[in-house]
Amino acid sequence: MNYKMMGRFIGHILLVEAVFMIPSLIISLVKQETMACMGFAASIGMILVISLLLLVLCKGNKRGFKAKEGLVCVAISWIVMSLLGAMPFYLSREIPFYLDALFETVSGFTTTGSSILSEIEGLSMSILYWRSFTHWLGGMGVLVFVLAVGASGESNKGFTMHLLRAESPGPQVGKLVPKMKKTAEILYLIYILLTVINIVFLLFGGMSLFEAVCTAYGTAGTGGFGIKNDSIAGYSPYIQNVCTVFMLLFGVNFSCYYMLLLRQFKSVFRDEELRLYLGVVAGSIILITLNLKGFYSTFEETLRHAAFQVASIVTTTGYATTDFDLWPSFSKSIILGLMVIGASAGSTGGGFKCARVLIVVKGLRRNLRRAISPQKVQVVRINDHMVDEKVLENTNAYLAAYAIILFISFIAVSMDRFSVMTSFTAVLSCFNNIGPGLEAVGPTCNFGDLSWLSKGVLIMDMFAGRLEIFPILILFSRSTWGRLKG
Amino acid sequence: MNYKMMGRFIGHILLVEAVFMIPSLIISLVKQETMACMGFAASIGMILVISLLLLVLCKGNKRGFKAKEGLVCVAISWIVMSLLGAMPFYLSREIPFYLDALFETVSGFTTTGSSILSEIEGLSMSILYWRSFTHWLGGMGVLVFVLAVGASGESNKGFTMHLLRAESPGPQVGKLVPKMKKTAEILYLIYILLTVINIVFLLFGGMSLFEAVCTAYGTAGTGGFGIKNDSIAGYSPYIQNVCTVFMLLFGVNFSCYYMLLLRQFKSVFRDEELRLYLGVVAGSIILITLNLKGFYSTFEETLRHAAFQVASIVTTTGYATTDFDLWPSFSKSIILGLMVIGASAGSTGGGFKCARVLIVVKGLRRNLRRAISPQKVQVVRINDHMVDEKVLENTNAYLAAYAIILFISFIAVSMDRFSVMTSFTAVLSCFNNIGPGLEAVGPTCNFGDLSWLSKGVLIMDMFAGRLEIFPILILFSRSTWGRLKG
Repeated sequence: MNYKMMGRFIGHILLVEAVFMIPSLIISLVKQETMACMGFAASIGMILVISLLLLVLCKGNKRGFKAKEGLVCVAISWIVMSLLGAMPFYLSREIPFYLDALFETVSGFTTTGSSILSEIEGLSMSILYWRSFTHWLGGMGVLVFVLAVGASGESNKGFTMHLLRAESPGPQVGKLVPKMKKTAEILYLIYILLTVINIVFLLFGGMSLFEAVCTAYGTAGTGGFGIKNDSIAGYSPYIQNVCTVFMLLFGVNFSCYYMLLLRQFKSVFRDEELRLYLGVVAGSIILITLNLKGFYSTFEETLRHAAFQVASIVTTTGYATTDFDLWPSFSKSIILGLMVIGASAGSTGGGFKCARVLIVVKGLRRNLRRAISPQKVQVVRINDHMVDEKVLENTNAYLAAYAIILFISFIAVSMDRFSVMTSFTAVLSCFNNIGPGLEAVGPTCNFGDLSWLSKGVLIMDMFAGRLEIFPILILFSRSTWGRLKG
Repeated sequence: MNYKMMGRFIGHILLVEAVFMIPSLIISLVKQETMACMGFAASIGMILVISLLLLVLCKGNKRGFKAKEGLVCVAISWIVMSLLGAMPFYLSREIPFYLDALFETVSGFTTTGSSILSEIEGLSMSILYWRSFTHWLGGMGVLVFVLAVGASGESNKGFTMHLLRAESPGPQVGKLVPKMKKTAEILYLIYILLTVINIVFLLFGGMSLFEAVCTAYGTAGTGGFGIKNDSIAGYSPYIQNVCTVFMLLFGVNFSCYYMLLLRQFKSVFRDEELRLYLGVVAGSIILITLNLKGFYSTFEETLRHAAFQVASIVTTTGYATTDFDLWPSFSKSIILGLMVIGASAGSTGGGFKCARVLIVVKGLRRNLRRAISPQKVQVVRINDHMVDEKVLENTNAYLAAYAIILFISFIAVSMDRFSVMTSFTAVLSCFNNIGPGLEAVGPTCNFGDLSWLSKGVLIMDMFAGRLEIFPILILFSRSTWGRLKG
């Protein structure tokens, strides 16, 4: 392990985190929220001290990097960032228990959006801003940000590649241009641009700037923290529809937008993952709308709620305009299905990801064809490109890890006194970075009543889901720490 | 496709089925059950006619066989066998709707044990006998039986290998001795021996011979059709414990018994799958017993019910002594977990199978080790033997197929008006060949109220579960029927 380089990297991350806390500090000053102001000031000070210590103590040692170090580095960065990011909630006493504050922060950074709070509107504005901003930061990834703005001399090529691979969602790394730094820049530019457009559309709907910004943060990161107790339900149909559209937009692979900028319309149109994603969305909306016949007073209302909830769940955002826990079971089953499928790879959304569904299904069909005609060479193609056997194998390993973690977490969480469905959907929701589940963790409820054990398990699930499992597994693997050499 | 050989093979299977119906016919004659007697006589006549027609029409053509033909042959055999095996239920008017009769028969042959009947004790004895006997036949496999008794000249080596591979449960073929026919014989001898011992133990508990035989059939095949409305709940603690022990015995890989006969105690003791299986059983019993504290009046009762239900679910039998749907959610979650894990490979039980769990977990750990140290060669070992990369790949493909079928079936079945949990556990239960699920398909309920669509989906799930998915997928694959050449 190259501890010095890791320490230096985490130091950089924390520096960025401290800087990103300043807007919240300013809001607390302007709005004269004393406790929050003190909380942010103390947190920023603390983070800066740790950051500078790390940067000073970990100088030197520029030797090459190994793959595992990238993965471990990402996992540790996210954990440290969350541990310290929770301080404002805790120090301001707005979330008096540290584990709850940590749950809320992890839920924010991992863009899950599950909350332990029952009363959101009682929070101070600066805290609300920080809560929503964690989504925006976590959506595209803080490390990607550091790559985009960081000095390119600092980290060698292999290292940045491993970092981006660990933090970017999807089975294959979305390298848009040969240079990693450039790729990270482009991704962030598209991200910022789409967020700004989203804010403008929300402002047209009559939202205040604060509301619009916070809502857009939650949408862009596909997070789901709202600033109202009833999420998006109280807003106008126009605003709800804007959210639907933008949630879906942020669930698209960002490389599609890059191709659009390059005017490669044909390859966007032919992209198999995009087609699967849009097909799943359209199919689910139609089926749920048919199933909900008579549930709402008008067809427009039915379609609006169906589309909103489908977009919210498939992109793993987690905003709600209605309590889908009251829907008939067929609709609820589709929602559960969407929770697993998730958004596109290379988007800010979570879940198993459409690209992986494609690879698993095509891999399975290849296996069947091979059983039928063993002598023929059979390859898997996506978008006319051959999928590497290693990607196939890793995707299957991902499915295995996904199933095993889901299984173990479910058994652990069901030690709480809640129903089987509550435990199952709580895990499903946190692991896929969605937000609400069903029954006692449904859209109108929260995660506050769970035991500390369940909260701990769900925190690990949120990390595992956001970082796509392997960094977390490798962090806790014995072989990683087998030989403790610097 | 070698249709002639397939036709001849199915002819043989049907001949065996007709012969196996004769005991039921005799019972109906002795007990003077007129309708049932006519039903069995007509069914036997019908099956014989079809069988002889196939044997006569499909003479000749002895060319070599392909892998896919073995798989397709097995799938078609099971479907035809079930279609005709349902006739006695239907013709005797004891199950007046053919789809229901088919559901019951498929549930029997696949050793699922899910029933559409609410009133079992009203059935005539001969019909009850046939119903239980389908479990015993399906448990070890009719094709294995045909191999064991069949003329070895008939089918070439490759073909029998493919057949056994398709019908025997588990990721690797359990070849005990070099000759397939001999292996099949040994398996059946162990099966018959254990069944007889089971019957003797039940007789000691005061059961009538008929009850003991039927109960042993359900236990041996890990089926779960009882002959009482309350399953095993009404019997004495002694009988319940006998059932617990024998259910667990039939969930063990039969090759362990063969090794015991060869006095290779050490390799049995060291068998990793056996250890996992017993570990899961013991762990689940302990956790559930602790969780159920105060649920039953005495500790003995708690332990007995916990052990019985754990044994029944993990071996995918499905007998019940108590309504576990009323248990606290932690116990229910463990039961759900056991449904997925299932029994050992090479046993008569279903589910994902302990051997596959081992392979998937070890394969995942290998992948992690490879991510940590890419330059080292990493192999997966089970019982000190290296697992072939192809077996690893196929097991991962199996997991993918398992997840996809579970997913699609769940969405389809949830179109019924039942709860999400009912739909989910109905699919889980049928696909893993267990029997009961939770809520509306719980241990005290039945599958009779489901729609014809759900019953159809569940029938396919039962087949897919029993034949380990691939034969069924290949049967319905376009590539199989791509070139319709004899």
